[in-house]
Amino acid sequence: MLYQQVLQQIFKDIQPLLGQGKVADYIPALAKIDPSKFGMSIHTVSGEKFSIGDAKENFSIQSISKIYTLVLAMAQDNVSIWDRVGREPSGSKFNSLVQLEYESGIPRNPFINAGAHVITDIVNSSYDSPKSAILSLVHKLSQNLTINYDQQVASSEQETGNRNYAMCYFMKSFGNIKNDVYKVLDTYFHQCALAMNCIDLSKSLLFLANEGVMPSTGENIISKKNSDRLNALMLTCGMYDAVGDFAYRIGLPAKSGVGGGIVAIVPGEMSIAVWSPGLSTSGNSLLGTKALELFVNYTGKTIF
Amino acid sequence: MLYQQVLQQIFKDIQPLLGQGKVADYIPALAKIDPSKFGMSIHTVSGEKFSIGDAKENFSIQSISKIYTLVLAMAQDNVSIWDRVGREPSGSKFNSLVQLEYESGIPRNPFINAGAHVITDIVNSSYDSPKSAILSLVHKLSQNLTINYDQQVASSEQETGNRNYAMCYFMKSFGNIKNDVYKVLDTYFHQCALAMNCIDLSKSLLFLANEGVMPSTGENIISKKNSDRLNALMLTCGMYDAVGDFAYRIGLPAKSGVGGGIVAIVPGEMSIAVWSPGLSTSGNSLLGTKALELFVNYTGKTIF
Amino acid sequence: MLYQQVLQQIFKDIQPLLGQGKVADYIPALAKIDPSKFGMSIHTVSGEKFSIGDAKENFSIQSISKIYTLVLAMAQDNVSIWDRVGREPSGSKFNSLVQLEYESGIPRNPFINAGAHVITDIVNSSYDSPKSAILSLVHKLSQNLTINYDQQVASSEQETGNRNYAMCYFMKSFGNIKNDVYKVLDTYFHQCALAMNCIDLSKSLLFLANEGVMPSTGENIISKKNSDRLNALMLTCGMYDAVGDFAYRIGLPAKSGVGGGIVAIVPGEMSIAVWSPGLSTSGNSLLGTKALELFVNYTGKTIF
Amino acid sequence: MLYQQVLQQIFKDIQPLLGQGKVADYIPALAKIDPSKFGMSIHTVSGEKFSIGDAKENFSIQSISKIYTLVLAMAQDNVSIWDRVGREPSGSKFNSLVQLEYESGIPRNPFINAGAHVITDIVNSSYDSPKSAILSLVHKLSQNLTINYDQQVASSEQETGNRNYAMCYFMKSFGNIKNDVYKVLDTYFHQCALAMNCIDLSKSLLFLANEGVMPSTGENIISKKNSDRLNALMLTCGMYDAVGDFAYRIGLPAKSGVGGGIVAIVPGEMSIAVWSPGLSTSGNSLLGTKALELFVNYTGKTIF
Repeated sequence: MLYQQVLQQIFKDIQPLLGQGKVADYIPALAKIDPSKFGMSIHTVSGEKFSIGDAKENFSIQSISKIYTLVLAMAQDNVSIWDRVGREPSGSKFNSLVQLEYESGIPRNPFINAGAHVITDIVNSSYDSPKSAILSLVHKLSQNLTINYDQQVASSEQETGNRNYAMCYFMKSFGNIKNDVYKVLDTYFHQCALAMNCIDLSKSLLFLANEGVMPSTGENIISKKNSDRLNALMLTCGMYDAVGDFAYRIGLPAKSGVGGGIVAIVPGEMSIAVWSPGLSTSGNSLLGTKALELFVNYTGKTIF
Repeated sequence: MLYQQVLQQIFKDIQPLLGQGKVADYIPALAKIDPSKFGMSIHTVSGEKFSIGDAKENFSIQSISKIYTLVLAMAQDNVSIWDRVGREPSGSKFNSLVQLEYESGIPRNPFINAGAHVITDIVNSSYDSPKSAILSLVHKLSQNLTINYDQQVASSEQETGNRNYAMCYFMKSFGNIKNDVYKVLDTYFHQCALAMNCIDLSKSLLFLANEGVMPSTGENIISKKNSDRLNALMLTCGMYDAVGDFAYRIGLPAKSGVGGGIVAIVPGEMSIAVWSPGLSTSGNSLLGTKALELFVNYTGKTIF
Repeated sequence: MLYQQVLQQIFKDIQPLLGQGKVADYIPALAKIDPSKFGMSIHTVSGEKFSIGDAKENFSIQSISKIYTLVLAMAQDNVSIWDRVGREPSGSKFNSLVQLEYESGIPRNPFINAGAHVITDIVNSSYDSPKSAILSLVHKLSQNLTINYDQQVASSEQETGNRNYAMCYFMKSFGNIKNDVYKVLDTYFHQCALAMNCIDLSKSLLFLANEGVMPSTGENIISKKNSDRLNALMLTCGMYDAVGDFAYRIGLPAKSGVGGGIVAIVPGEMSIAVWSPGLSTSGNSLLGTKALELFVNYTGKTIF
Repeated sequence: MLYQQVLQQIFKDIQPLLGQGKVADYIPALAKIDPSKFGMSIHTVSGEKFSIGDAKENFSIQSISKIYTLVLAMAQDNVSIWDRVGREPSGSKFNSLVQLEYESGIPRNPFINAGAHVITDIVNSSYDSPKSAILSLVHKLSQNLTINYDQQVASSEQETGNRNYAMCYFMKSFGNIKNDVYKVLDTYFHQCALAMNCIDLSKSLLFLANEGVMPSTGENIISKKNSDRLNALMLTCGMYDAVGDFAYRIGLPAKSGVGGGIVAIVPGEMSIAVWSPGLSTSGNSLLGTKALELFVNYTGKTIF
């Protein structure tokens, strides 16, 4: 089956399920999203691209942005990151403070909120204008200069972000946040509010399927070693508290966001982005996960 | 580089490090092991085999045995296993009772002790003589009929097994152990006490690199789907509380035991067993992990 | 108001509430108790006694028995008890294993189950026949030689006691249980199964209101200092996870059991026993607590 | 022995121990205090007063201030306080976030930091100028109008208060802080920075030994019932994670602060304040606790 046919089959398969799951409702800008949206996009390292459904419609990428800041931080300071953030699955809810208390302010990995705060803190220490730096990276990777922060979402995140303030202050009490909490979280709330579509997303992360190199330009974004490592981190830490289940069912490195997006990597072959706003109880897109499972069933593409 | 040369290079590289790490000392039979032992063995799906060092010397495989019982349980009852055991990384020590308390007696995955108790409980419900059933499977997979339980180790495990009794009774209090605790743990302590060498181990688990089929006999041990799933479970849950670090550095599905053994799978290609008794603080073989990292560096074999 | 009148008023007040609360149902022998039972008894240090309702009907004293074993242990070994058991409120459920894990097998106080196991372990080390020793103490204190263990309750406790086995094995894994777990818990399940009535109970614990001396015989059971300390332990640890609420509302040292009994001490004046099988969510007798609150309201007797 | 003689004897007894314990050093203003300071003061309900040592020297009362804000909050809103704060001992460190996470943002009692934040939040909702309201109460109770906030301490508290910010934001994420976090903590950091001496302290809290009435003026500060309750809260929650030990050894309601002060109440008789900056590992004044233990030994005054 050709990939476009695979996407069409998946699109057909998930029609009866559209609207399932629970749309994130902690901010109005997310709560109002139509739960029946569904888009999917594939970019291959050989230059092909495929998409279906609402693949051109922007959504809030939320935690998927943690990949971009980690790429920036790894570029700055690959070694000392891992003194301040672990790389183990959390084994608990993505925003738990319990783990931080028992492990002295060192978050378990860069993909839980607390870990992302530390990464964003490193980015804040490295760039005069961290929000511009993140946006520049996204523009380069996606080759779409119109991508921007959704200011309304960013403001809402800030207003409802008490738990993020709590975590960030808590880590600062252990000395693991170096910059002002308000500045760090301002950057963080903006990165979460990046508005992108499936095509942007899969295109922008294709370098992770190509040993760190953007196929279209040949630019080396990160080393092959760091590309492998980022994929490993996505597999063990990228899907909140459902990483094991996702690896069991799908078997691809992936990162999800509460906006309903998921990006998955088939090393050496392609990157896939899928979007469907309804979430499972673990906070991952319900139909996005289903679509990726169907993709693996139809194509046999899995790393195991 | 040919694989035998790779093994020789690794063996040379690790010479200055021999004796590092801390040999498990909770039972005398393990504590007395010479810390400078090192063996490594590779079996490929195409029928090649390579080994070096103490690859023919028996050691206590301990938690690696959890793969064999899981294979037996999946064969019986693939569905209902996952009502009684999760498949998420634990995010904490391998024998913690805290998680069991917060999650009502459902262990996080089949590779932590509590999860293995449940799997062994399923095996106990499925076979009149569970210890014979495990041994038969190991004999078939390794094609070595001399493999047996080390009764001295099994007895020692039982005598010092108070925490295992605590966990098993605790799960029974939630209704998640069906058989008598003493019978379940008798089987469990015996499976941990299987005495095998690197050649036996890598040979016996080669089916996991070959879509569930033993290449030498063509026998289907488990389905391709279940083989993928077992590899996924190993990657996300197989290395105690260092799964993320192991995936980051090595990037292969693997399972370790406190006897100092580690088995790793290169899907589609080979299985690798390594043994070195000195453990890291996470309970995994220090030089075994190092040897696998060198292997990946020399060969580029990783799933990411 | 004379005390008999107070009891009559309380009895009248609680009539409309009889049957409220949830009778302990983890063993059949407790589950079948009539929830509308209510008895209350007072013994004063000056030799007066008052009772009302079902004060002469036996019930299972359960955790109240932890006072008797603690008295025996303090008599043996007042110092080293506190190396093995804390004397702080638990701040969590009475049978939590989490605390034991974080505090290396040292239970928080002698009135939670784990702490009582350690105390019973000390009694088991001190007496050839610990069950006889406990019974002898109860006979002496109550001056009622007919009091005995309810063997049916003891057997049921053992059959459903998986969590107690889990805790006891867990502490043994830390070296904090010296005797065989089965022997310790056999004693423990029997002490919980002591069948006594309100009159027996209040009489037997009157020495705690009289500086450690039984008023009727003049016998010194424990020193004044230890009597003060036992009252302090009851106040801070005697009412499961409702000690603060009980101190706030009633303000007397007290110990409750899931059989529905509560004993309270008015230092220098009297001991009070009350029984009503319906429990609150915290595991304390709902109407027993209410009756003691009324008693304090009518008499002003409180230590604060 | 007369009380002045008792104080002299205590003062003599503790001389060889002066300087023991560890002075709080999280802010410079506390770290620089001379560890050999020791003062003690008694006020009786019959109007007598006794003091010794450095009883007239001001120190930072820190957590003892939680009594004053609780008195203000109880005056406003006795009922709804207990929907937002528990009254159970914490069973863990005084500034743990773990408990808040497991109990949905409801702190265990008003004397741990998180609980005091909620109480101060209530005071902030009740008074236009909460800092003035607290100061007015302290002036009235101590009859010393010179008492004031130590602004240097208050500023230092704010600068190092990241964990307090973390807790307060965390509770706000559960909806249990109504006012702006910065305003609530500004009040909180000031109340902690109240500079008072032993004489002020014991005088100001004498109403707790006199059924809620200031003996010198006859003014009713709180009802007898609430006075009993405050004493009960002090006994079960007033000494951080050493309430059980303190009740066991001393047996009086008390509240301590990391500045080295402790206030204890003998209901119906007197209030006692003691100050010695060296702290035990539980955060309570080491010699202050010792002095109160000696007081109880010499006088037999205990509530049990």
